[in-house]
Amino acid sequence: MNVKEVEKLLREVRNGETTVERALEVLKNFPYTDLGFARIDHHRELRTGYPEIIYCAGKTVEQVREIIRVMSAKENNVIGTRATTEMYEAVKGIVPEAVFYPMARIISVRRKEPEKPDTSIAIITAGTSDMPVAEEAAITAELLGNNVLRIYDAGVAGIHRLVDKLPEIRKCRVIIVIAGMEGALASVVGGLVDKPVIAVPTSVGYGANFGGISALLAMLTSCSTGVTVVNIDNGFGAGFSASMINKMK
Amino acid sequence: MNVKEVEKLLREVRNGETTVERALEVLKNFPYTDLGFARIDHHRELRTGYPEIIYCAGKTVEQVREIIRVMSAKENNVIGTRATTEMYEAVKGIVPEAVFYPMARIISVRRKEPEKPDTSIAIITAGTSDMPVAEEAAITAELLGNNVLRIYDAGVAGIHRLVDKLPEIRKCRVIIVIAGMEGALASVVGGLVDKPVIAVPTSVGYGANFGGISALLAMLTSCSTGVTVVNIDNGFGAGFSASMINKMK
Amino acid sequence: MNVKEVEKLLREVRNGETTVERALEVLKNFPYTDLGFARIDHHRELRTGYPEIIYCAGKTVEQVREIIRVMSAKENNVIGTRATTEMYEAVKGIVPEAVFYPMARIISVRRKEPEKPDTSIAIITAGTSDMPVAEEAAITAELLGNNVLRIYDAGVAGIHRLVDKLPEIRKCRVIIVIAGMEGALASVVGGLVDKPVIAVPTSVGYGANFGGISALLAMLTSCSTGVTVVNIDNGFGAGFSASMINKMK
Amino acid sequence: MNVKEVEKLLREVRNGETTVERALEVLKNFPYTDLGFARIDHHRELRTGYPEIIYCAGKTVEQVREIIRVMSAKENNVIGTRATTEMYEAVKGIVPEAVFYPMARIISVRRKEPEKPDTSIAIITAGTSDMPVAEEAAITAELLGNNVLRIYDAGVAGIHRLVDKLPEIRKCRVIIVIAGMEGALASVVGGLVDKPVIAVPTSVGYGANFGGISALLAMLTSCSTGVTVVNIDNGFGAGFSASMINKMK
Amino acid sequence: MNVKEVEKLLREVRNGETTVERALEVLKNFPYTDLGFARIDHHRELRTGYPEIIYCAGKTVEQVREIIRVMSAKENNVIGTRATTEMYEAVKGIVPEAVFYPMARIISVRRKEPEKPDTSIAIITAGTSDMPVAEEAAITAELLGNNVLRIYDAGVAGIHRLVDKLPEIRKCRVIIVIAGMEGALASVVGGLVDKPVIAVPTSVGYGANFGGISALLAMLTSCSTGVTVVNIDNGFGAGFSASMINKMK
Amino acid sequence: MNVKEVEKLLREVRNGETTVERALEVLKNFPYTDLGFARIDHHRELRTGYPEIIYCAGKTVEQVREIIRVMSAKENNVIGTRATTEMYEAVKGIVPEAVFYPMARIISVRRKEPEKPDTSIAIITAGTSDMPVAEEAAITAELLGNNVLRIYDAGVAGIHRLVDKLPEIRKCRVIIVIAGMEGALASVVGGLVDKPVIAVPTSVGYGANFGGISALLAMLTSCSTGVTVVNIDNGFGAGFSASMINKMK
Amino acid sequence: MNVKEVEKLLREVRNGETTVERALEVLKNFPYTDLGFARIDHHRELRTGYPEIIYCAGKTVEQVREIIRVMSAKENNVIGTRATTEMYEAVKGIVPEAVFYPMARIISVRRKEPEKPDTSIAIITAGTSDMPVAEEAAITAELLGNNVLRIYDAGVAGIHRLVDKLPEIRKCRVIIVIAGMEGALASVVGGLVDKPVIAVPTSVGYGANFGGISALLAMLTSCSTGVTVVNIDNGFGAGFSASMINKMK
Amino acid sequence: MNVKEVEKLLREVRNGETTVERALEVLKNFPYTDLGFARIDHHRELRTGYPEIIYCAGKTVEQVREIIRVMSAKENNVIGTRATTEMYEAVKGIVPEAVFYPMARIISVRRKEPEKPDTSIAIITAGTSDMPVAEEAAITAELLGNNVLRIYDAGVAGIHRLVDKLPEIRKCRVIIVIAGMEGALASVVGGLVDKPVIAVPTSVGYGANFGGISALLAMLTSCSTGVTVVNIDNGFGAGFSASMINKMK
Repeated sequence: MNVKEVEKLLREVRNGETTVERALEVLKNFPYTDLGFARIDHHRELRTGYPEIIYCAGKTVEQVREIIRVMSAKENNVIGTRATTEMYEAVKGIVPEAVFYPMARIISVRRKEPEKPDTSIAIITAGTSDMPVAEEAAITAELLGNNVLRIYDAGVAGIHRLVDKLPEIRKCRVIIVIAGMEGALASVVGGLVDKPVIAVPTSVGYGANFGGISALLAMLTSCSTGVTVVNIDNGFGAGFSASMINKMK
Repeated sequence: MNVKEVEKLLREVRNGETTVERALEVLKNFPYTDLGFARIDHHRELRTGYPEIIYCAGKTVEQVREIIRVMSAKENNVIGTRATTEMYEAVKGIVPEAVFYPMARIISVRRKEPEKPDTSIAIITAGTSDMPVAEEAAITAELLGNNVLRIYDAGVAGIHRLVDKLPEIRKCRVIIVIAGMEGALASVVGGLVDKPVIAVPTSVGYGANFGGISALLAMLTSCSTGVTVVNIDNGFGAGFSASMINKMK
Repeated sequence: MNVKEVEKLLREVRNGETTVERALEVLKNFPYTDLGFARIDHHRELRTGYPEIIYCAGKTVEQVREIIRVMSAKENNVIGTRATTEMYEAVKGIVPEAVFYPMARIISVRRKEPEKPDTSIAIITAGTSDMPVAEEAAITAELLGNNVLRIYDAGVAGIHRLVDKLPEIRKCRVIIVIAGMEGALASVVGGLVDKPVIAVPTSVGYGANFGGISALLAMLTSCSTGVTVVNIDNGFGAGFSASMINKMK
Repeated sequence: MNVKEVEKLLREVRNGETTVERALEVLKNFPYTDLGFARIDHHRELRTGYPEIIYCAGKTVEQVREIIRVMSAKENNVIGTRATTEMYEAVKGIVPEAVFYPMARIISVRRKEPEKPDTSIAIITAGTSDMPVAEEAAITAELLGNNVLRIYDAGVAGIHRLVDKLPEIRKCRVIIVIAGMEGALASVVGGLVDKPVIAVPTSVGYGANFGGISALLAMLTSCSTGVTVVNIDNGFGAGFSASMINKMK
Repeated sequence: MNVKEVEKLLREVRNGETTVERALEVLKNFPYTDLGFARIDHHRELRTGYPEIIYCAGKTVEQVREIIRVMSAKENNVIGTRATTEMYEAVKGIVPEAVFYPMARIISVRRKEPEKPDTSIAIITAGTSDMPVAEEAAITAELLGNNVLRIYDAGVAGIHRLVDKLPEIRKCRVIIVIAGMEGALASVVGGLVDKPVIAVPTSVGYGANFGGISALLAMLTSCSTGVTVVNIDNGFGAGFSASMINKMK
Repeated sequence: MNVKEVEKLLREVRNGETTVERALEVLKNFPYTDLGFARIDHHRELRTGYPEIIYCAGKTVEQVREIIRVMSAKENNVIGTRATTEMYEAVKGIVPEAVFYPMARIISVRRKEPEKPDTSIAIITAGTSDMPVAEEAAITAELLGNNVLRIYDAGVAGIHRLVDKLPEIRKCRVIIVIAGMEGALASVVGGLVDKPVIAVPTSVGYGANFGGISALLAMLTSCSTGVTVVNIDNGFGAGFSASMINKMK
Repeated sequence: MNVKEVEKLLREVRNGETTVERALEVLKNFPYTDLGFARIDHHRELRTGYPEIIYCAGKTVEQVREIIRVMSAKENNVIGTRATTEMYEAVKGIVPEAVFYPMARIISVRRKEPEKPDTSIAIITAGTSDMPVAEEAAITAELLGNNVLRIYDAGVAGIHRLVDKLPEIRKCRVIIVIAGMEGALASVVGGLVDKPVIAVPTSVGYGANFGGISALLAMLTSCSTGVTVVNIDNGFGAGFSASMINKMK
Repeated sequence: MNVKEVEKLLREVRNGETTVERALEVLKNFPYTDLGFARIDHHRELRTGYPEIIYCAGKTVEQVREIIRVMSAKENNVIGTRATTEMYEAVKGIVPEAVFYPMARIISVRRKEPEKPDTSIAIITAGTSDMPVAEEAAITAELLGNNVLRIYDAGVAGIHRLVDKLPEIRKCRVIIVIAGMEGALASVVGGLVDKPVIAVPTSVGYGANFGGISALLAMLTSCSTGVTVVNIDNGFGAGFSASMINKMK
């Protein structure tokens, strides 16, 4: 729709040939009118309990406090990821109902209760050391309104714990697998269940682990179908994507 | 050893036809009985139209022909990825109804019609050169029983084509974004739509593109939420995962 | 400007409180109205001789021929980069005035003469083997309407050729330096002249050259100020950026 | 050996105070006389307000203080990049008018006012965390005599801020885009504006970000024309190159 | 569910105390019963002195203390690798007989004496700085019940120490070679002895050593036959594998 | 200088035929006399059936033919790895009993029968495409005098084949696991069996597989104990090391 | 502008044929006059038998022929590296005395006999496949006027050949060690001899060899003192540097 | 077993005090007697002033003190590289004449005066921050008995300092060039002088510098002939190799 067409539409409105409502509709259907940057934000405001997200790392305590102050003033839910205790102390001073999840490094402010589907998200880790990433995923998913089934430390050495829970896992709608080192768990889970698997490589390990690259490559080249991957240590991204899938109607 | 056989063994124990010691020995020697791995396979057989998958690259023409012969004899659907024309010629000789998609490099044999949900999968590429990967994803998704909305060549230079189709894209349940070079399209789409995005980096490009690594890294580090990533050029994996999500109930 | 404001504006037009012209102006000034994707294209059409660009690699001969046919039909200038002789033969059949530059691998169709500033772009290469990349830059710059000063094979071994031309080089408005191997030429030129230097690493070389990475890293870490870098072997990008700077008013 | 000394030598030859052989010897032993390197420096001295640059990282506090003392004694402007507060304290003790920009990590001494063109440089960042690099670029550009338009935190999530400012951005003569993670902002801006874009990858991020490499690769392989790249976190280099272009006549 | 429980179930079936259907259900709900994973564990319990292994890095002091408390309660031997003094202090409070090897960073609890073959494992290091990794291997091997021959600091500069001990080394059943930098020692030893060599690259070194990658690559590409490699700095893994081979019957 | 010659020298000293000084000089001028390097070679000659190894890649057909001619003349067994059909044709012309294993790319000449232990080596591959590497390992092991248990195509998708064979695998003395892509099979096997596992990453795959690096890293960082690794595609090395372990007494 | 011309100018100044101002202008406009770069070239012309070097790879047959024609016309010696048979055929047509060394890929034209010192250069390779690189080094050194001692195929497996020649090697003035794979030979030789060692990594090998990187890293991190390294496969560079050292007075 | 002991043995054989068989046994059991490795050490002892080298990094203060105590007791000169002040304090307590060079991080003990040739080694750095590496090279060279010409901070920006000193540099016998960032200085110096250049990349810099890799690659791929390279930051290695060349007779 070009300028000429917009002009024509406006003239029709002036002349009463087109109603305001119809013109509004047309303008809204413009490819650019609907560009969505704004509308997404709008949708977010309308949906109950959909939180604002702040990536706190690389921000000062003051910046985090101010952003959360402004956001929570709008009665939105807020999730601050990669937050520190110090940030939380600053936020709590002005938003007393803020909650801090230390292992997940998340600050949350809850103003509205999100809808919660009956289905669940399973979060499986290979080892104890993957727990901070797992909790980031779990708390994110829970704050977005999901039931979470946590199965931690179910790597090769403890795989009976995984097999134990297979029936429960198979009832979940989407599965997050979190592993460092060789990341084999994603392939194993992907071979056992018929659900979308979101794999999170972690930087846990040493030697030829290279801060999570070995797990990342293993997960990307997994022979199991249905496995997609997010960034190293990106528990938040996995929780968010899993929530999108779990809350699908 | 399947459930029936275990049942038979138990009955023999009850009837005294088999001693407890013998039965224990048998069970110990078939540790995999209920391994679940098999159960998946079994489930696959039961579900209408779920295809068997063969990764043809690295196999000889003879191996591919034999595998497809065996599989299609079981009245299963078959998808052979990374197939060559030569492989197709060999397959067609024994399975005349086999179909070849040259751009997608897929051989398919269709014995049963898969269920098809009303919702669709959008597949968006940045450039014309990404089309082989996109077609691999598209044909995979279609053979698995999905409607596919193809939007090709919608990268930065042609982004109006993307914006044009936004309303249609937003109606899809899941979106596959395929791009080489800097892979920015995944972030742009992820910022515009509120649906799971599966990003496929392609090896298209030159210079500091490194066979798709630049796009892979860009997609993994995307600031847009809801983006997960599959391996470079892995159109099949994206199509399969998207199908899993699209066919969710 | 949100939907409410657009509605209000439309009502004012209907009520005669705002003229059509004024409303049009407002809509044109919308942040999204001006999103520019289209306007850039529009500007391009208006400007004399500004060419359409096609990256031919990864496209079929047929695709290239069709795209150039459509584009040249609009009386636009066209530049097809990374083109092959075969592509040129196909294009010439339908656009006889098309020209092919074999070393630069460029097909061009010239319909309008671009404006040409008095100032020039210097293009300096370290070795003879860098010439294809240099010619891609040079022909690009010339087709965009620039004078080009070519100084080839002026690397360490032949640096007297460079020094010889320093007075001429210093009269240019922008300088492109093209080098493989250790890419030291960019630092040397950057230290000798007080003009923007666009450095192009090339994949020329062997051993720890890694397809141009050694030159790329050297250019990125250059101690000389005023040096910016484009992708390995990206002569076109360098020629285009240099043209932007040279044609500045 | 400066021009005066060569002139003196020539006069001595003319006057017979020096033999041709002796003069030849002198000239041969000072091969660098006219080296141009020096001439550049000389030019710098003559031009009003052109600063001396010191890269402070890797130098001791004493070294930085001494270098700035010597330089500012010559009535030159001085820019010290990557400076620490401690360095500033030491410098202030001997050059009281020295100014410190903590976020930009720049110490400046201003003795002469640089010429300032009417045109501006736009500096756009994807996120808040890119601000130190952005400020290094901005302060550099301002100290070199440029107007700077700062647009911070305009990444995918806040892209309406970018779109909002597009008319203003388009009036600038050159644009610096600063982004970490997937660096998509450079491609997006490059697609929206018809001006030279200098992209600065930042080491902001985590996971497969690799200290800025993902952004660096994305920017180098950007499909948008007119984008050149400087080193990771090199705000100074971007500010300097942008100033060169902005101050062009 | 262990073998005893399965036996009990079978007896109940035989005795009519449990129906076939019920037994089938039980077996189906414990698919892992015979999984072999557990059997390995079971085997471990039976074998005298076979230790439980805990990788302590990335675990909290509390987690380590609890795990060791539980494990040592079962009268098993325990090896905690990558342990800190702090962890040891916490463990000692509840398991007084725990021993700490500071250089090897290992905590051990010994409840049963492992069998010890007559043959030995040789552990050879290139330099003094490789000793922590070597001790991790040595203590691991000793705790698993092996004689260890330590030959430290026998790199190129001190190779006479190696040659000195060749007759003794050749009497060992398996050899661990530990080296950083260029890792040449593995090739040299592999060429001198006719026994399996397990090579451990260490992160010792600087420059183009890249945290052990240079040694890792050298060891992987070793021209000497009979050399296999474990992860960088993985003394434990080398000690464990060497023990497996040394204790073979 | 061999043992005999030294003995002769000593006798001459004793008999006064050679002075002490002269003998000292001789010994000093043959520093390598007892170097052990030679002793290994000597040992090799003495042991029944131990083959000479030739790495044929990078050698000309003529070189390979000549080397094998010389070696087989000494009545030694010979194994030529990475051989081509062309090389075999040339060898067969002069050593008619030479045998060629095309998939393993091995030429062998058998002059003596090697001793064969009762125990076996298991060789397990993840996929069909790993077979050439597996056959290189298998033929190597067989030529060195070992029984080999081949279990091919037992990756995640076909893991029931692996589980099926577990009792047989557990009877083997050492296990070779060969896998490309994410290499998870090594971890899975390492978790299931209590025997030394030699893992061979293969270059099979595409995308972020990087010619076998993803599998190599996964295997190196494997959480399963008892896993050591050889170079990418190095079937020969794995077969050789496995033979060393299997033939241990 | 050469020394003669400067002398002429000075004489004109003395004679009053040229004003001081004019001479100053001329000197200022030829900043490179005494640049030394040229002086090196001049020196080259004067020295007996010092050859001109042409890197032929990346040049066309015509370019190589023309360059050699011009150079040999000046009665200089010429070395063309990385030359093909085709290039040689073209050169021979116009310079019949040109010689081609196929394994070394060198074309030479000899017009003057270079001085030859009494001392020699040892060139040692690890394997047969390193011979092309070794011959490039050897022929380069010989053409530059050096005696060369070739010791090929003296890697770990054949190290007795090396030890055999130690007395001869120790008489050489400088040693070139050429090896692919793990490159351990450089460390071994560096530990045995007290002479400068120039190490050349080669791209020979497979797997984690990465086109010579494993050997390059090993050589760079060599623990032996006195080892310096040139680029992968850079036989010419090693031969040239060794010649510089060997011909030192 | 040293030469004296072998002589004694031979005399015993001659005198009949030892049987031939016994002597043979002794010689066989000391295969390293003549190993040459030892001979090197022996040579070292004999040569005046040749120091023992200790790489202190990765050693404890106690280890360093003990090693230096033992070594200096033998009246040898000692060089301890990468030493800390703390190590020096410990050494000084037992070897009071020990000297510490803090910037070079070297401890030296001087017992004998090394021979000093008339020729010199030039050490040139690109920047001030390269000084620690340069001093390591310089002090090493001086302690080994060489005259050193230091030219620091002569990079692109200060290249007139380099040109200034060219006549002096050309008189040196070997040149060490030390540079971080893009390492161009090695190529520039290599192009200006006709002497062996040993290039040392330093880890100085930031961004795409990667701890010295950019400089390393640039130096390895340098187009200038006569340049060889040592490891990143390896000032000691450069000083040692330069000394070998400079002290050649």
